[in-house]
Amino acid sequence: MSAVLDAPQVYSLFDKHRPIFERAVLACSERHCWSPYPELPSGYPDAARAQALGAEAFRAQLGQRFMLDQPGVIGDAGEEISPYTQRPLGILYPKSDIDALFDAAEAAIRPWAEAAIDTRIGVLMEALDTLYREHLFEIAQAVMHTAGQSFNMAYAGSGVNALDRGIEVLVHARRAMAEIAPSARWERSFGAARIVLDKIYRLVPRGVAVCFSCASFPTWNAWPSMLASLATGNAVIVKPHPATVLPMAITVRVFRRVLAAAGFDPNLVTLALDTHGEPIGKQLVLHPRTAIVDFTGSVGFGQWVERNAHPALVFTETAGCNAVVIDSVEDLDAVLRSLATTLCMFSAQMCTSPQNIYLPKRGVRTPQGTVGFDEVAQRLAAAVAAIAGDPTKAAMILAALQSAQTPALLDRLLREGEARGEVLLRPASYAHPEFPNARTRTPLMLKVGKGERDLYGEERFGPVSFVIACDDAADALTQATRDVRELGGLTAFVYSTDEAFVADAETAYARAGAQLTINLTGPMPLNFAAAYSDYHVTGLNPAGNASLTDLAFVAGRFRISQSRRPARGAPTTN
Amino acid sequence: MSAVLDAPQVYSLFDKHRPIFERAVLACSERHCWSPYPELPSGYPDAARAQALGAEAFRAQLGQRFMLDQPGVIGDAGEEISPYTQRPLGILYPKSDIDALFDAAEAAIRPWAEAAIDTRIGVLMEALDTLYREHLFEIAQAVMHTAGQSFNMAYAGSGVNALDRGIEVLVHARRAMAEIAPSARWERSFGAARIVLDKIYRLVPRGVAVCFSCASFPTWNAWPSMLASLATGNAVIVKPHPATVLPMAITVRVFRRVLAAAGFDPNLVTLALDTHGEPIGKQLVLHPRTAIVDFTGSVGFGQWVERNAHPALVFTETAGCNAVVIDSVEDLDAVLRSLATTLCMFSAQMCTSPQNIYLPKRGVRTPQGTVGFDEVAQRLAAAVAAIAGDPTKAAMILAALQSAQTPALLDRLLREGEARGEVLLRPASYAHPEFPNARTRTPLMLKVGKGERDLYGEERFGPVSFVIACDDAADALTQATRDVRELGGLTAFVYSTDEAFVADAETAYARAGAQLTINLTGPMPLNFAAAYSDYHVTGLNPAGNASLTDLAFVAGRFRISQSRRPARGAPTTN
Repeated sequence: MSAVLDAPQVYSLFDKHRPIFERAVLACSERHCWSPYPELPSGYPDAARAQALGAEAFRAQLGQRFMLDQPGVIGDAGEEISPYTQRPLGILYPKSDIDALFDAAEAAIRPWAEAAIDTRIGVLMEALDTLYREHLFEIAQAVMHTAGQSFNMAYAGSGVNALDRGIEVLVHARRAMAEIAPSARWERSFGAARIVLDKIYRLVPRGVAVCFSCASFPTWNAWPSMLASLATGNAVIVKPHPATVLPMAITVRVFRRVLAAAGFDPNLVTLALDTHGEPIGKQLVLHPRTAIVDFTGSVGFGQWVERNAHPALVFTETAGCNAVVIDSVEDLDAVLRSLATTLCMFSAQMCTSPQNIYLPKRGVRTPQGTVGFDEVAQRLAAAVAAIAGDPTKAAMILAALQSAQTPALLDRLLREGEARGEVLLRPASYAHPEFPNARTRTPLMLKVGKGERDLYGEERFGPVSFVIACDDAADALTQATRDVRELGGLTAFVYSTDEAFVADAETAYARAGAQLTINLTGPMPLNFAAAYSDYHVTGLNPAGNASLTDLAFVAGRFRISQSRRPARGAPTTN
Repeated sequence: MSAVLDAPQVYSLFDKHRPIFERAVLACSERHCWSPYPELPSGYPDAARAQALGAEAFRAQLGQRFMLDQPGVIGDAGEEISPYTQRPLGILYPKSDIDALFDAAEAAIRPWAEAAIDTRIGVLMEALDTLYREHLFEIAQAVMHTAGQSFNMAYAGSGVNALDRGIEVLVHARRAMAEIAPSARWERSFGAARIVLDKIYRLVPRGVAVCFSCASFPTWNAWPSMLASLATGNAVIVKPHPATVLPMAITVRVFRRVLAAAGFDPNLVTLALDTHGEPIGKQLVLHPRTAIVDFTGSVGFGQWVERNAHPALVFTETAGCNAVVIDSVEDLDAVLRSLATTLCMFSAQMCTSPQNIYLPKRGVRTPQGTVGFDEVAQRLAAAVAAIAGDPTKAAMILAALQSAQTPALLDRLLREGEARGEVLLRPASYAHPEFPNARTRTPLMLKVGKGERDLYGEERFGPVSFVIACDDAADALTQATRDVRELGGLTAFVYSTDEAFVADAETAYARAGAQLTINLTGPMPLNFAAAYSDYHVTGLNPAGNASLTDLAFVAGRFRISQSRRPARGAPTTN
């Protein structure tokens, strides 16, 4: 620890951030609403200037080499294309030799792991604070032009909310580590002898973690995953999706600078770059020195990671069939408006976006009488169409499509839907008011029978939803929860004025492992997940095994090694 | 929860055991020496009578059907042979259909999972207390005549110490669960609207756990594993090694009785029986409804379990090359005496037994000068021979060989040792004073060069040790820690009067993940691991991924499902 003792400013970083950290500890315990950050870009200090500077920083990077001084550079690559302009960003990132990254990461660990817990927490709080103060709008621009999010979502979902999830993980990591006594004296008789032992308990990191970030929501999962590994003393190699590198490249650069300024080896955080043509994901997962894998991304690769990462510890968040069940409502318009907004939000490219809407085939009960299945489906489609048909709203809510494959997927599903069900809403481009070349599609909505499970029974990445006719409300719930349990699901939404039905839904979804929202209407996106309050992913179904943030997300990232010896001055008698 | 509310006696079980539980909470935090149980059989209340009753209960079971009323019985089996008499115990256990056990376990979970945390903890404390009060000496006899332990070890290591590890796990399970707020109110503005949500957080068990217990130490790992799963709301199917069924069959019967008396479904705990000829281990691990696997046993099967149990959560403790390094000592005789006793303890059939003794080839420094390598090796062998040559001591310390395969292993290693190194001590039967037909062998000790890694580089189950010549003390430490890191190891022992060497050893073993004991001599077995104080297994090397008991051992056994809805009386505005 001598290197750390020589750097007194490190010690003050925890104190500097203590007021916010302690407030976060309280929020995690009570799980109320709290954030140290302004909810909207307009609330950011000197907002106009900060936004302009962020946009300028982003523009200045376009077509340029990304400066990142890390070990083992063997070339460069970069193939990002903006969903808003459909033109390459032209940024070239350094590509490092994988073994060189592992070598450098391993060499960096020891002083970091031996530093006091609060030294590490302080440095990591400083990194989050630096992201917030100096790079938030640059990252928002980077997220827009890689993932395709709207500016407001990029600010919130990929900015301040992601920072919140980062602080939250630090609270849990500190809690898990603080449980362990650093030392103990142990005294017992064996026969006539008295044995007195002094014991030391060391928190030992697992080693080098690999953190995969995804193309559509690069920071929201990756920041907490990185922080969970770093807080517990590990090094992290960040492997961004090749379509969305810039937000994580900026992140890596900030972490490296903050670590170095605090006297630690910046190689605790590095970037591993690959391309669509030459992916390195499997190589990283199977690397003998990979100790932890955090993966956010597709179901297919996520399941491969879960099966093959052994002996590395694995945390995944993939995707599933998020479900809506409507039994009965107080205000059908309010429900459909909320659902429509949520179906449109970022073109349903969020892991929490609902996809499957299970309805009783006899319709939905309302105070005005039962509204038939077809009418509910058509009014929901109309509510979606009202958003999709207004370019200003569409730009704000639908934003752009991250992947160039999504339009083809929509076309294919449209043909399938025509053949096997009924098309409620056909996808079409909409004209983005600000970016005329934006890759946009309005939602595809299909009406199908519950027998078409091969069609709706997996996540269809993009603005697609299925209205599924079920025998009755109980059948809808049974089908929806069975699909979640067997096929995966992260969120679920139930509408019912019948408390017995609600209670059944709570029990069924608790076991199926989707986080349930009941009878919510109004302007909050139904799938909004609040840091410090909402748990994200349960691990009870195939949609992922990790939860942001519970103790299980952090407690296994470090281990406990002990040593014990006869106490001095209290020699073992024989 | 209504079934539980109707059973008020359940609520008092936690109160009944609260004083001991709270004392255990303190011990787990401070990690000092504590146990609610007497250390020696003689300290047990009315010891002579209790021992006689236990022996009588055991004798009465011999040759009889074991009464265990559990679902899906399709036959019976039993092939245990006492290592002390080498005759079959003749006990037939019910063999249940595996799917029937899973059906019954799943059906039992819900009221158990929905009970209050302290209701479950109370019931499980009652089960441990029942084992202690009513079955301890019966279990000690059962352990003796299956595993081959001495009576004193069976009482302590498989009795009260195992109960202690059970209480310890309950402390950690309660701590992990108590972290989670049961509910919260969350309030935030979205635009002009105020959203007020009431949230409920439910602890949901993973499902059905399978707990494998091993042949030589059936209860010490299995009790804490069972309790970790049960405390967090899961059901447990216990799969004992077919050579050592009785201790766990008694355990299962006690748990079933206590659960039923508390108003819960006894099928929360069942026994899955197999035979050497028709093992069911893989079937259980691969069963689609297996949610958790706890495995104690061989390295080979343990690694298969780790690789194949996905999506079940896996906790393993297998074995490794536990290492001794001697650099320099104050009192060589005291060191060699301690080492000899520990090498002999239960014929080194403990996962914590040392096997590999790394010495500088120029010898060991002492206050009287350097004692040459060969002399140290020979004096150690002589100290072992002194124990092995005294039948009373041998019976107490070496006890009997669990497996009928071990004598052949010793013969094979003896031949290898003769060819590739030097035999320091040849194994032989010793005459057990009480059981003339006991399966006994005195230790085999071999002197080898460090190049013979294929010989010493895996756990050799039984009384075998290797004295390994290294270039110098630093080389010995390097070799020993490399072997632990690469091949696995649970415990390590270092002797040095040089504090710099000790510090190096502490660092190296902390990273390699073996729990280190430094300069210990005297009557305490060097490999004694104390509940509430010593962590067992680190998960940092191939010898297992679980630790008794840290938060990671319990925190993933339950998940958190939430539901949220607009607060009543505080309607969402729109």
